[in-house]
Amino acid sequence: MTLEGKMLIGQQAIQGRREPIHAVNPATGERLEPAYPGGTREEVDRACELASVAFDHYRETTLEARARLLETIADEIEALGECLIERAVAESGLPQARIQGERGRTCNQLRLFARTVRAGEWLDVRIDPALPERQPLPRADLRQRHVALGPVVVFGASNFPLAFSVAGGDTASALAAGCPVIVKAHSAHPGTSELVGRAIQAAVRRCGLPEGVFSLIFGSGREVGQALVTDARIKAAGFTGSRSGGLALWKAAQSRPEPIPFYAEMSSINPVFPLPAALKSRGAAMGEAFVGSLNMGAGQFCTNPGLVIAIKGPELETFIDAASRAVEDSGSQTMLTPGIFEAYESGVKGLADSDKAREIARGHARDAPNQCRTGLFVTSAADFMTDEALQAEVFGATSLVVECRDSTELRRVAEQLEGQLTATLQMDDADLDTARDLLPLLERKAGRILVNGWPTGVEVCDAMVHGGPFPATSDARTTSVGTAAISRFLRPVCYQDLPDALLPEALKDTNPLSLKRLVDGWRES
Amino acid sequence: MTLEGKMLIGQQAIQGRREPIHAVNPATGERLEPAYPGGTREEVDRACELASVAFDHYRETTLEARARLLETIADEIEALGECLIERAVAESGLPQARIQGERGRTCNQLRLFARTVRAGEWLDVRIDPALPERQPLPRADLRQRHVALGPVVVFGASNFPLAFSVAGGDTASALAAGCPVIVKAHSAHPGTSELVGRAIQAAVRRCGLPEGVFSLIFGSGREVGQALVTDARIKAAGFTGSRSGGLALWKAAQSRPEPIPFYAEMSSINPVFPLPAALKSRGAAMGEAFVGSLNMGAGQFCTNPGLVIAIKGPELETFIDAASRAVEDSGSQTMLTPGIFEAYESGVKGLADSDKAREIARGHARDAPNQCRTGLFVTSAADFMTDEALQAEVFGATSLVVECRDSTELRRVAEQLEGQLTATLQMDDADLDTARDLLPLLERKAGRILVNGWPTGVEVCDAMVHGGPFPATSDARTTSVGTAAISRFLRPVCYQDLPDALLPEALKDTNPLSLKRLVDGWRES
Repeated sequence: MTLEGKMLIGQQAIQGRREPIHAVNPATGERLEPAYPGGTREEVDRACELASVAFDHYRETTLEARARLLETIADEIEALGECLIERAVAESGLPQARIQGERGRTCNQLRLFARTVRAGEWLDVRIDPALPERQPLPRADLRQRHVALGPVVVFGASNFPLAFSVAGGDTASALAAGCPVIVKAHSAHPGTSELVGRAIQAAVRRCGLPEGVFSLIFGSGREVGQALVTDARIKAAGFTGSRSGGLALWKAAQSRPEPIPFYAEMSSINPVFPLPAALKSRGAAMGEAFVGSLNMGAGQFCTNPGLVIAIKGPELETFIDAASRAVEDSGSQTMLTPGIFEAYESGVKGLADSDKAREIARGHARDAPNQCRTGLFVTSAADFMTDEALQAEVFGATSLVVECRDSTELRRVAEQLEGQLTATLQMDDADLDTARDLLPLLERKAGRILVNGWPTGVEVCDAMVHGGPFPATSDARTTSVGTAAISRFLRPVCYQDLPDALLPEALKDTNPLSLKRLVDGWRES
Repeated sequence: MTLEGKMLIGQQAIQGRREPIHAVNPATGERLEPAYPGGTREEVDRACELASVAFDHYRETTLEARARLLETIADEIEALGECLIERAVAESGLPQARIQGERGRTCNQLRLFARTVRAGEWLDVRIDPALPERQPLPRADLRQRHVALGPVVVFGASNFPLAFSVAGGDTASALAAGCPVIVKAHSAHPGTSELVGRAIQAAVRRCGLPEGVFSLIFGSGREVGQALVTDARIKAAGFTGSRSGGLALWKAAQSRPEPIPFYAEMSSINPVFPLPAALKSRGAAMGEAFVGSLNMGAGQFCTNPGLVIAIKGPELETFIDAASRAVEDSGSQTMLTPGIFEAYESGVKGLADSDKAREIARGHARDAPNQCRTGLFVTSAADFMTDEALQAEVFGATSLVVECRDSTELRRVAEQLEGQLTATLQMDDADLDTARDLLPLLERKAGRILVNGWPTGVEVCDAMVHGGPFPATSDARTTSVGTAAISRFLRPVCYQDLPDALLPEALKDTNPLSLKRLVDGWRES
């Protein structure tokens, strides 16, 4: 497929008229063709109008039709073949195997949402039949289901050019819920975005759905994003990216005449707690495994372990020594964009220059563009708690070890943490009481709690929570990975005394969708 | 029980030191004793600290223990006997039978939430067992449940001194979810609030729970409310009241360093659509029934039918004539507070003075304080669509009929409406196609859709949605009435590879709570 450098507005391909975006191969610094001229308010308006027109039809398509759209998108993405892999590798600097894996994950995710749509549990059907004889007042017939919120804007993420971008988790869950989607492509991978966008466009066409179900817009700077989020026809948005970018868009969404849900996944340093017995029995092995997680994808995962909190002593020294050696052995890795590389360098320099953090080890340097050198720093609990800058996320493969005097101080450090995507306990059996004591605190701080694993690697499944208290996300009540994400794009509606002819399928007496409904307080089986 | 004019902070009763609130009997203008001096930041701080300390314990009480607390609160409220009824009647001007009914509804609501807590479906347990042999990567053991958000602030409402106040829907759903509750009492009914507050205080004591599970604070003006909503230990809030009051607190909640969910139920005019065939066959009866709903509780229900939208013609005239006669026959009713009466008078004057609305009928006047005279006004669709003021809620028994030229104009009026709690269709069989055509639009506008009923009267049940798009509420994704409200105070947490000894009961392999869990994509039966 030849890249055209065009936006996709419904079934059309449209050339932008604003300053063009060029992707850059971060591994070489090479500028990649074609140019992607940015969109204007005109394309935003057109995409929103098409989405708005498509909404009432699309949200009432059958579960089967919607599931088939998701599966067709997966098929079309796979049909792109090697050109997608090559372009995504060139635009991201990520290894080919990683991009192949990410394509698999993206397609599996779409197919998993198809299964979720078909199962229909997300409709959360509740029926309270009429009680005409009830005293002192009769009860009406009341039925509830969930409906889609409306057209949704999805912001592509830099660090997952496939799984969190044009056909990523937010798009899959919004389409599953019955919401048309407008994607604002991430400017780091416009070519990958065009390819995947064309796959979705083809799937919409093949499935005979209204063209407004999907559009893809380019644009550097914040103009297009702000215009999309503040358009009255948009009813929710999903975002994965930086804290400053997420908060700016979140504020715009809350300042509308009609505020809308804005799901931003922003900032997390993912604390790891190596507990005393585990440190004693396997401190060295743990230190090495920790750096393995730290280095994954050049540390450019939202769940990268950027913080280690433990009690000071010889056992922690063993962990730190092993981790230091592993860091020193770490080869440099290409980062996603020159901008991300610069921010990483500045974050690491901030730690290096701080009189409160001590550099313990750095990985290899390499004379190539945008290379991430792994970093390991140490600080004291007292300094960590008094210097907010030490809690800031350094996006990339650098981590900070916080040394605590004792378990009381460790608890105080944990209590002072901001909201996180994950919290990890490394423990042996002898740590069970300590772990049990920490668990309620960690539940208040994080969306996912791990024991004896590492936070990188987010499974797409029913039980996953990729979310957490602010500022990990703007809304801890949902997840952006896993099938539970469908609920973020839904709202309940109650139907009182509707004749059967008017009731939606899910609510009809005959239960044509064969759902297990909550009827008069009892779950149908 | 003797009223003491004191706040309840945990198990203590504390005298405030700010300017005292006095309840006023709106039927007589009489000032009611005792005085309720307002709280300061000191009591806010103390209540938040107690709630915060109680949280980790309270949220992990057994389902049975939490259900029993809710039932004990209901028992204690009933044990208050006639003194509660008398005080609530005196403070609200509402008839005794209404207050008795509201007490029954409040206690039923608490007991219904007890049933919901015990059933445990709200935990939404999902288990994806480990797949150690999976290629290319093994899957960890992943388990999800929902946990309580944290301490919650509830603002008492003026119009339901029992069912939406100290032990009302928000308190019941937050306690059910596992959240400690701090109630900011509504200044219109401090005595009723103290009585119910003491019932909850006694129930917390009887159940042996930490005292911080419940506190009650008084305060005029916005100081106490703002202090509560912006306290870092508070993690969510529920509010029922005016649009201006709700938006001010909502903004405060969003401007915190850590924004929190703020559920405001604010403003709704609850459009009624009498469709052509129904108007023709039973316009007069419908007009009369409509005024019955309009007059309920002096029109002081959130679901009061403040708007009628129909096609102009002789059939609509019949409806209007019958409604006019019923309005003219309407006796005046005492409103809840002098402030609400003044706002009503000013709203009605706004309609009367408008050159775009025509007064059709007014109810009887009566020489007594704070009397609501029912009002009926008519306007044209064209005027309605160009004058935003006509869409503003007039809280009280006044409604506006919007005459449309044809079904196209009717649809345009409907499309321009703000978000609503309810939308009502009055229809005959011959209106089925018209209704089917309108339904998707109404689903986008309202949380509850009724056919051939009237919106006043909100059933407390599983299927109820008392919510809707902004500005009916600040968050259309939830309801403030019915058992689904429990979800507004919950968030999901995922547990990865936790040893069984650390897993919460709901997630253990042996399923000790006998929940129907989603395991590996399949619902247990």
